[in-house]
Amino acid sequence: MASKSNSVRINSLPGVRRLPFYLNILRRMRNGEPKVISAVTLAEEAGQAVSVVKKDIEMTGAVGKTGVGYDVAALIGDIERFLGWTDPYDAFLAGVGNLGSALLGYGGFKQYGLRFVAAFDADPEKVGEAIHGVEVMPLVKMPELGRRLRVSTAVLAVPAEEAQSVADLFVESGVTRIWSFAPIPLAVPEGVIVQREDLTAGLAELMVRCRNADQT
Amino acid sequence: MASKSNSVRINSLPGVRRLPFYLNILRRMRNGEPKVISAVTLAEEAGQAVSVVKKDIEMTGAVGKTGVGYDVAALIGDIERFLGWTDPYDAFLAGVGNLGSALLGYGGFKQYGLRFVAAFDADPEKVGEAIHGVEVMPLVKMPELGRRLRVSTAVLAVPAEEAQSVADLFVESGVTRIWSFAPIPLAVPEGVIVQREDLTAGLAELMVRCRNADQT
Repeated sequence: MASKSNSVRINSLPGVRRLPFYLNILRRMRNGEPKVISAVTLAEEAGQAVSVVKKDIEMTGAVGKTGVGYDVAALIGDIERFLGWTDPYDAFLAGVGNLGSALLGYGGFKQYGLRFVAAFDADPEKVGEAIHGVEVMPLVKMPELGRRLRVSTAVLAVPAEEAQSVADLFVESGVTRIWSFAPIPLAVPEGVIVQREDLTAGLAELMVRCRNADQT
Repeated sequence: MASKSNSVRINSLPGVRRLPFYLNILRRMRNGEPKVISAVTLAEEAGQAVSVVKKDIEMTGAVGKTGVGYDVAALIGDIERFLGWTDPYDAFLAGVGNLGSALLGYGGFKQYGLRFVAAFDADPEKVGEAIHGVEVMPLVKMPELGRRLRVSTAVLAVPAEEAQSVADLFVESGVTRIWSFAPIPLAVPEGVIVQREDLTAGLAELMVRCRNADQT
């Protein structure tokens, strides 16, 4: 029985969402000096409170040395392991419009273990193209390929009207993790996790923060 | 004096970030029946707790009728007004790589008042192109144009290495709201608000939520 219970709040787990930012800062330090970083310095770099940074990092199991800080390389490893980004995993993407194409070409994802093995689109004119090296296939091919390659992760970048039917297809293909850029809630069976991404959420936050700043 | 104090937590104001999602649901209802929606129904549609939805909506000043719910058209208006999305405003975009180009073509933004008037890129080969109808100009032209058009909002989609210098250019151009997709903190003068967007934050959250689900 499909349920909406898994289609989720965007802003849960805020600490988890901050980890990639710390990781970026740390990776940029990796090959240089110093080899250690204090929570205070990392907090300054990240524009966060020290207590927040410490709590976020604690979550990953990383341990710093009192009066010294964290070993940069070790901390990178701990965060990557916590996020499951040490082993690459295969992903599908559906919908190769502007956004979908940009996501296929976003070099950043590879650094996080995500590797696109195939893209899908309803438009026959797009089928057969290779976008950023990823072949575009007809939707009908998805279930067989997904089962064969055991693809667990999929990115949904189709218009709202098609989102539910493509999500159903993901599920039929064996996908258990759906990263959805569609602006509607999705009904999925238990055991399938939907992470909804909303590009306009940040814009909303920006507008309100500016108005608050103007009023003070 | 530049400071990092304005380069901000991604996950503050979670309620504000949820408003665009409600707005999407409501806009899809606008031309149909029913003309009213209860908090319970909206919560169900959005996959949120009723108490959360009520609190989020209260923030906008919208008032429902006991036992009836919210008038859909009125609620749309209240949310749009709260988010400052009733009046269109001009924006710049810098960095027309994959992500920047996709953002220029993202039809959704227009619905939220954001109108791109010019794009900028450091690559002379891209200058002069029109991407989704928006002309790409050399960075050097930005300050004069920004001052002349009184552009207050800018989207930063350049690589990390160029992010700070382009942010400086935004500030010089009179921009006071920077929506940054660069994976580094930016130093900006007081009065300039930076909203950082991180595409990998959602991926991090998805991975951790799946692991948690596996363990239960």
